[in-house]
Amino acid sequence: MSGSTFGNLFRITTWGESHGKGIGVVIDGCPAGLPLCESDIQEYLDRRKPGQGKFTTKRQEGDLVEILSGTFEGKTTGTPISLLVRNQDQRSKDYGNLASLYRPGHADYTFSEKYGFRDYRGGGRTSGRETIGRVAAGAIASAILKQLHITVTAYTKAIGPIQIPEADYHMDEIRTNPFSMPNNSYAKKASDYLEQVLEQQDSCGGIIECTVEGLPAGIGEPVFDKLDATLAKALMSIGAVKAVEIGDGFSVATSLGSQNNDSFFIKDESICKRTNHAGGILGGISDGSKLILRTAIKPTPSISQVQHTVTNSLEEVEVSIKGRHDPIIVPRAVVVIEAMTALTLVDLLFQNMSSQLVSIKKFYMEDTKKNV
Amino acid sequence: MSGSTFGNLFRITTWGESHGKGIGVVIDGCPAGLPLCESDIQEYLDRRKPGQGKFTTKRQEGDLVEILSGTFEGKTTGTPISLLVRNQDQRSKDYGNLASLYRPGHADYTFSEKYGFRDYRGGGRTSGRETIGRVAAGAIASAILKQLHITVTAYTKAIGPIQIPEADYHMDEIRTNPFSMPNNSYAKKASDYLEQVLEQQDSCGGIIECTVEGLPAGIGEPVFDKLDATLAKALMSIGAVKAVEIGDGFSVATSLGSQNNDSFFIKDESICKRTNHAGGILGGISDGSKLILRTAIKPTPSISQVQHTVTNSLEEVEVSIKGRHDPIIVPRAVVVIEAMTALTLVDLLFQNMSSQLVSIKKFYMEDTKKNV
Amino acid sequence: MSGSTFGNLFRITTWGESHGKGIGVVIDGCPAGLPLCESDIQEYLDRRKPGQGKFTTKRQEGDLVEILSGTFEGKTTGTPISLLVRNQDQRSKDYGNLASLYRPGHADYTFSEKYGFRDYRGGGRTSGRETIGRVAAGAIASAILKQLHITVTAYTKAIGPIQIPEADYHMDEIRTNPFSMPNNSYAKKASDYLEQVLEQQDSCGGIIECTVEGLPAGIGEPVFDKLDATLAKALMSIGAVKAVEIGDGFSVATSLGSQNNDSFFIKDESICKRTNHAGGILGGISDGSKLILRTAIKPTPSISQVQHTVTNSLEEVEVSIKGRHDPIIVPRAVVVIEAMTALTLVDLLFQNMSSQLVSIKKFYMEDTKKNV
Amino acid sequence: MSGSTFGNLFRITTWGESHGKGIGVVIDGCPAGLPLCESDIQEYLDRRKPGQGKFTTKRQEGDLVEILSGTFEGKTTGTPISLLVRNQDQRSKDYGNLASLYRPGHADYTFSEKYGFRDYRGGGRTSGRETIGRVAAGAIASAILKQLHITVTAYTKAIGPIQIPEADYHMDEIRTNPFSMPNNSYAKKASDYLEQVLEQQDSCGGIIECTVEGLPAGIGEPVFDKLDATLAKALMSIGAVKAVEIGDGFSVATSLGSQNNDSFFIKDESICKRTNHAGGILGGISDGSKLILRTAIKPTPSISQVQHTVTNSLEEVEVSIKGRHDPIIVPRAVVVIEAMTALTLVDLLFQNMSSQLVSIKKFYMEDTKKNV
Repeated sequence: MSGSTFGNLFRITTWGESHGKGIGVVIDGCPAGLPLCESDIQEYLDRRKPGQGKFTTKRQEGDLVEILSGTFEGKTTGTPISLLVRNQDQRSKDYGNLASLYRPGHADYTFSEKYGFRDYRGGGRTSGRETIGRVAAGAIASAILKQLHITVTAYTKAIGPIQIPEADYHMDEIRTNPFSMPNNSYAKKASDYLEQVLEQQDSCGGIIECTVEGLPAGIGEPVFDKLDATLAKALMSIGAVKAVEIGDGFSVATSLGSQNNDSFFIKDESICKRTNHAGGILGGISDGSKLILRTAIKPTPSISQVQHTVTNSLEEVEVSIKGRHDPIIVPRAVVVIEAMTALTLVDLLFQNMSSQLVSIKKFYMEDTKKNV
Repeated sequence: MSGSTFGNLFRITTWGESHGKGIGVVIDGCPAGLPLCESDIQEYLDRRKPGQGKFTTKRQEGDLVEILSGTFEGKTTGTPISLLVRNQDQRSKDYGNLASLYRPGHADYTFSEKYGFRDYRGGGRTSGRETIGRVAAGAIASAILKQLHITVTAYTKAIGPIQIPEADYHMDEIRTNPFSMPNNSYAKKASDYLEQVLEQQDSCGGIIECTVEGLPAGIGEPVFDKLDATLAKALMSIGAVKAVEIGDGFSVATSLGSQNNDSFFIKDESICKRTNHAGGILGGISDGSKLILRTAIKPTPSISQVQHTVTNSLEEVEVSIKGRHDPIIVPRAVVVIEAMTALTLVDLLFQNMSSQLVSIKKFYMEDTKKNV
Repeated sequence: MSGSTFGNLFRITTWGESHGKGIGVVIDGCPAGLPLCESDIQEYLDRRKPGQGKFTTKRQEGDLVEILSGTFEGKTTGTPISLLVRNQDQRSKDYGNLASLYRPGHADYTFSEKYGFRDYRGGGRTSGRETIGRVAAGAIASAILKQLHITVTAYTKAIGPIQIPEADYHMDEIRTNPFSMPNNSYAKKASDYLEQVLEQQDSCGGIIECTVEGLPAGIGEPVFDKLDATLAKALMSIGAVKAVEIGDGFSVATSLGSQNNDSFFIKDESICKRTNHAGGILGGISDGSKLILRTAIKPTPSISQVQHTVTNSLEEVEVSIKGRHDPIIVPRAVVVIEAMTALTLVDLLFQNMSSQLVSIKKFYMEDTKKNV
Repeated sequence: MSGSTFGNLFRITTWGESHGKGIGVVIDGCPAGLPLCESDIQEYLDRRKPGQGKFTTKRQEGDLVEILSGTFEGKTTGTPISLLVRNQDQRSKDYGNLASLYRPGHADYTFSEKYGFRDYRGGGRTSGRETIGRVAAGAIASAILKQLHITVTAYTKAIGPIQIPEADYHMDEIRTNPFSMPNNSYAKKASDYLEQVLEQQDSCGGIIECTVEGLPAGIGEPVFDKLDATLAKALMSIGAVKAVEIGDGFSVATSLGSQNNDSFFIKDESICKRTNHAGGILGGISDGSKLILRTAIKPTPSISQVQHTVTNSLEEVEVSIKGRHDPIIVPRAVVVIEAMTALTLVDLLFQNMSSQLVSIKKFYMEDTKKNV
């Protein structure tokens, strides 16, 4: 329980506040023998790093990761991997005046109600910096998936009203614009839109889509730990996510069974589907086709416009949040979505290994070295 | 793990297939002293019962629940409550011809891939009858919430294209039409629409909305076990749900921070919010205002129209699914949504009890009877 | 949590009181494809059945098990297996006079303190009948172990002061005396001793030993979920167990390192140990040699001798417990020890399957059928 | 799963190897408002520190703890507390020659079998240094228990054959000798005995007893998560522990019901017990009297005597383990036993808070501040 742990067989526990000494994560259940060094993880952390364009915060976050345990001679040992990112460039006084008031759209009020008080510096545990632990662990999950030839790809489908239709996706352009959008000309439009938003001292939201290719059929546990249910939890647990959908998602509500059912057919002696309205999941279990997930990200709640709010001594006040904040967090959340998806898949892949007696017998009876 | 268990402190484990001997659930962690008898549970089960209108299956499911354990002299004892509903009216032969083929939109193929074979009678564990365990346990969770003056209300917001705008909600009409819609004239339109769908041997989907009133602020655990994340898993784990949203949900993607942030103000010496775009959850923790959840339900995959599919011996075939099936499952899913919401809330309410040292001290130090 | 669930990947949830409608268990995570019918389980339940000799209770407990779900055409399907044993021959009035008093050595007082009141009929959930769920589930775990050529054998090492030295073990005699002792002449002495105990209206305890053969090396998870730690919890959770030891157990306290260390040597190109003081577990992980576990069982607390106690209205009273009670529960607990050991092993065998990347790759990459 | 996590509501996750960068622990679920600073934790760590006498290793382990997260202005915030102890004075080359061989009595062989290879430096994750995480977390659990007036006290009852009878306990002497024995003259005898053992280049074991005072009745969850079962797992998970007993433990096997049952009586209008054979636990739930636990610790497996063993290339070799090793680990394990006991109690105290409906109603309905 207690909220900071995700996963069962491949299990991560994150910790850390924005203005404490650091942020970190412990990964337990990582199989032995995975090649792993700090640069494998740093590559993912750098993708969530701010300061890369004018629409991301100006803070200089080095966010250098240190592997504290769990590897030996360049490979994982099967024991817990502890990762540490020290906090730097913390300007606590920026937040001092926010100590007694509850910022609209933030968790200040709810944390104070739950715990009796809160670490008011930069959002504390509710800061976007909390995702560092998720991304660092996600890098390791992704390394495992790569070994199994499974690929997770997330990208920005929409920034405010600028939404890319599927027909216009150019997947090779995702890393060539600052918004991780699969179309550079839409990215240009998004940039123009964000200029306006910034001028109005406002912020905006967007939509992130995530696909998974190469996942075998059979992954996900029935009833409560379905693949889609576990992914929904994983994604909805990310700070600003307010909606999650699988495959056609909300549009199934206005579809007909004859349209929404994906027909099976045979191709190269394999079972395939003609369409993929289901987004790769049937009955909560992967069907071997591409997974399709979509999440809606709310506008950054920190805006410099004047807002009305209250203090913890029940006074009404006006507040203008100065600090350094992204007017949009969507581009930085893309790698977080990938991380949570990868973490979910690895855990469910491991859980699936004992689903058939025949596999268990093969594992323990044929491997004579294990029966010494 | 293993998928059939939900919750931590208030934990349920469901079991049973559509054509086995019965369906059931074990509820562990129910506090002692709750008045409970079979009719409290039957009332909820009757709400998911088919055969109540022309758009629900004609099967006669008595679905009478038996309490096998956990109560004594009309009250819960704190030990596990086992509930059993025997299956009746099983016509296994209806399904015999489906043994070797994979119905489009169903989990036949994915279960076969996961387990090597499957119980093909009526969907087995993937049948809608699986929700009996959820609803029976949800009835007990709801009884606990009632003791705490917390109310969960779900209703059909849309059936296919017939969607009720919030301004037209008449909450007192929910139980006065066969679709659990909060507006009888929209329910009439939905009925007409379903007539068409039926004529075309087709099926359709819809949207269910669920609200919670009376929930105190502070419920939900940070980071991975957020209230919204746990609810998303709970709801997405229901068979036909393909999307979940909280508060404004997907529409936050096109909103601005200045619009989407809910302003706090003071009323009667309490902190309130002027709007509720957040749907009652900030930073994954309840803020004391109304919870608002929305789910999209896909069209029933079983349709009598001819569909193209494959068999487990890799042959392509045509199939027309005759059996007895609802052309829409939305109305019957309303109580399932309520059940899963109630189960989530009770578990997180219990988990929250140890969030502050001062509460723990009060619990153990002031209750002198416990310190014998 | 909540106490009635054991295991992670192979997970059981038990329920039921001695004088409720029945006792049962749900097994979730049983792999698909295991041949299973009711007689496989009944065989184990019959071993814990009373009424088989003059030192066990005279109740006629039929204890017939019914499989309610999870099998199809004689094999497990991978979905939860629900087992039900209806209670019969309940003479509640035998216990009526015990409603208000706390029997010494029983959990009457502690349950009342925890829950505010209790089901006083026959011990309720603390009755020895609670072990029916464990044994029924253990029968399934044992069936899985048998498929992997792993054998669990428990037997009575001591009844009161009558203890069999290891040199006198005749393992083939275990099932040929009513005490499950591996030596019939010691069983005769135990019988004589129990006659005396009965005459004195008293009860006595004993020691059960359990061994496991065929377990591969490498089973058990480091640090907190060690094989020995998990077994200790499994065994100590059985009603009357007050001590658990592994291998040499308590006698290691007076041993020297040079005596206690088991030397490795090579035999038939395999690594073996010359001795087995460690009881088959090093660092919490199986070493491939025989597991040796030992538990101490306390004397049955229900005795017909007059005892001093108190009531829930704080009066001191005398009590003589009449009902039908075993003067010793050791022989009936033997199969319960086996069951808990088997349940632990299966769960840890499944958890171990993802310990090495090379095994995971083999599982998912070589099995091309899974990569459709 | 995955083994490095203990507890549910109060949950710890440890990580780190003896010769990696450090050792640490994340504590999740610590209630907000507990005063906590590094010296509170350091005090416990210092008690397990070596180098305090001639019978403990000569390594200079500073073992200074750093709080990385979870506190603000001297109090816990309710978010995860991350603790870090950097490793120092690592002489990896001491262990180089042990890379390819399996030390008798150590986990070298079992780890290699489980994971395919191992970090051979100083035992890696199986080193005694792993207990730093347990003790650091235990310090926090102990601070919570202190707030509830619950006291955990462990001490050395026996070193090899030198065992202190209960009648000779002088509890005030525990911290006045290097062995944490409650009798200084027995400590002197133990010292003489250890001299002999050292001369023989050997090692020895012992017994640690642990008591808990002030624990209210009602703690522990029935059936599988009994107080004694959870404690047994907690204690048996400590490296060298081979046996655990509660109350009279193994001696119940030769006791009679009339002797072993603890009579209840009334004193000062409270229910008390005349004896405490049960060790404070009835039916797995605390009865309000003193908890009594006992564990057997095996002799340190690292001895400088020549031993026979094998290498990973299946050669037989002789080995004399030089390094720096305690000839007995019992005195240093005392605080580890206390830590694991405290961790278990806090978790079960929190779990117990939702056992009665009346307490839950009191918590949520009377605390009007929470119902804003």
